[in-house]
Amino acid sequence: MRGVLDLPPQLEDRIRAVDRIIEAALASESKYVARPRDHILATRGKGLRPALVVLWASVGPGKEACPHVRPEAVDDRATIEVAAAAELIHMASLVHDDVIDGSTTRRGLETLNALFGARPSVLLGDFLFAKAFGLLARHRDLGVVELMTDAISAMCEGELEQAACAFSCDETEDGYLRRITLKTARLISACCRAGAVIAGASAEDVADASEYGLELGIAFQLTDDALDFVADERELGKPTCQDLVCGVLTLPVLRLLTHESLGPRARDLIASRRFDPESVMWVRSAVVECGGVDLTYERAQQCIEHASACASRLPAGPARDALTALTRQVIIRRR
Amino acid sequence: MRGVLDLPPQLEDRIRAVDRIIEAALASESKYVARPRDHILATRGKGLRPALVVLWASVGPGKEACPHVRPEAVDDRATIEVAAAAELIHMASLVHDDVIDGSTTRRGLETLNALFGARPSVLLGDFLFAKAFGLLARHRDLGVVELMTDAISAMCEGELEQAACAFSCDETEDGYLRRITLKTARLISACCRAGAVIAGASAEDVADASEYGLELGIAFQLTDDALDFVADERELGKPTCQDLVCGVLTLPVLRLLTHESLGPRARDLIASRRFDPESVMWVRSAVVECGGVDLTYERAQQCIEHASACASRLPAGPARDALTALTRQVIIRRR
Repeated sequence: MRGVLDLPPQLEDRIRAVDRIIEAALASESKYVARPRDHILATRGKGLRPALVVLWASVGPGKEACPHVRPEAVDDRATIEVAAAAELIHMASLVHDDVIDGSTTRRGLETLNALFGARPSVLLGDFLFAKAFGLLARHRDLGVVELMTDAISAMCEGELEQAACAFSCDETEDGYLRRITLKTARLISACCRAGAVIAGASAEDVADASEYGLELGIAFQLTDDALDFVADERELGKPTCQDLVCGVLTLPVLRLLTHESLGPRARDLIASRRFDPESVMWVRSAVVECGGVDLTYERAQQCIEHASACASRLPAGPARDALTALTRQVIIRRR
Repeated sequence: MRGVLDLPPQLEDRIRAVDRIIEAALASESKYVARPRDHILATRGKGLRPALVVLWASVGPGKEACPHVRPEAVDDRATIEVAAAAELIHMASLVHDDVIDGSTTRRGLETLNALFGARPSVLLGDFLFAKAFGLLARHRDLGVVELMTDAISAMCEGELEQAACAFSCDETEDGYLRRITLKTARLISACCRAGAVIAGASAEDVADASEYGLELGIAFQLTDDALDFVADERELGKPTCQDLVCGVLTLPVLRLLTHESLGPRARDLIASRRFDPESVMWVRSAVVECGGVDLTYERAQQCIEHASACASRLPAGPARDALTALTRQVIIRRR
């Protein structure tokens, strides 16, 4: 069911250990918890966030030459538990997002919200958050609790800002980038930084980890926002153009709004806040025609180059290779 | 605006310090966070949970005679931050409850859900949880993180069980008591236990704190469930009989269902899942007539007596007096 990330074989044991920690953390004797929890576990994504914790932790301490991944050089328990917590936080935020958006499909499968309703979804999200912080608190001395609470605060701020700006044709590219940084990139950045901190990395490596994650996260969201207009529903695993219909104006649409001949009709449509299937189809074609999708991929490509530059400063080895390969995976992914 | 608990004047400074910690923890430069946050802060309750942390912490260490509250004897920072975290967890759960139940009024004021909608409510709840765990993690060595994550898990289990049992006339008094223990009493018990642990209390005192909180919490919910049928909307600060309409069968209704002459009509009404104002009025009178409200108060009174017995084993002093007084406040309260 789950997609696969391109990770060094040396790290596969750790990724399996993360999965075991997640399952153990969510153990509950209550059948009322077990059913929604099992659905959530069965519909997990590729595990990008825990992989980033594990990869950055495997880079190893200090500025020493580190020609290969050295799993024994870092605090293994901290790595695995913090990686599991990062995934639980991400899962919780997706479950809550689906309630907020009333989404019925994600990754080609029914959402918890569609199957069980809002009540179990909100509650299970809270349960996931609590379990995540139970794991994180064990490693508080590493500063990972603050890293993750700051990332969650940013996520909430970004989502609230996005809701407040719905249907606003005055939104700028800068405003959009700020928003996706808050709602998506900050948590991804925190995962990378947490990994580097656990590894006892140098201040330079920790800064590179943060920047790598921020750029990767922005590229990830830009790609998502482009795919929403060019992928088909099956590829995407959820309905296309959902953001547009909800008034969330992403970069492809912002470009369309500034287009001389196509912009005015787009503005009128958005101002009307009513999208019939025909007008959605028109916007889909128009964002491609005006270069909105190309611009979005271009921006994503720039972020990926920045992220790669951060990874390139690491010692040669499988961790560096994997972190570089991940940047490419993020913009060629489909689901 | 806020109701007042009957606390020893010596502890007022600490309660004010808790309020300051809560405000500082929720600081955000984002105006999109500030507006819903300010509403939540302005509509806070009496602060029962932080008061319980502070009171149990003030009982002091060991089994020594402790004739007066000794604020200097315990870890003040831990007390205040854990008390603030307990309140943040409670606030988060209320905000999420109001989304789940679609509630528009609480404590006589509009809910966040009514004013801002589901999105800010779900997100602000997550924000509150994150901030709570940021505070708790600072005192992880005291075991307070596990105490609170266990309480949140119990809360989620209780709420999920409640939803699964909606409109089920086969519910028993034991099932109901189990459910309210999970959804309400476990967090209140965790607050008391956390206070005692912070104070370095003896194992006996810690056990008494847990039991006191559990009994107080059950009495609290029983009283709530009785008031739902006898208080008026203004006194209650929210619409009456909301549980009934949502299919949540509380003790007064469970007693009605077993009544020889009134039970069958109640069963039919609940099975139909449709309550017009007239049938709600009928249930209101019938639960009183069949002794359902009296039974519920009786059970609450028994719990209060157990809680008082736990408090009575403490050394004489203002903390013991206040903990005893609180048990009475819980069953005579209105809102």
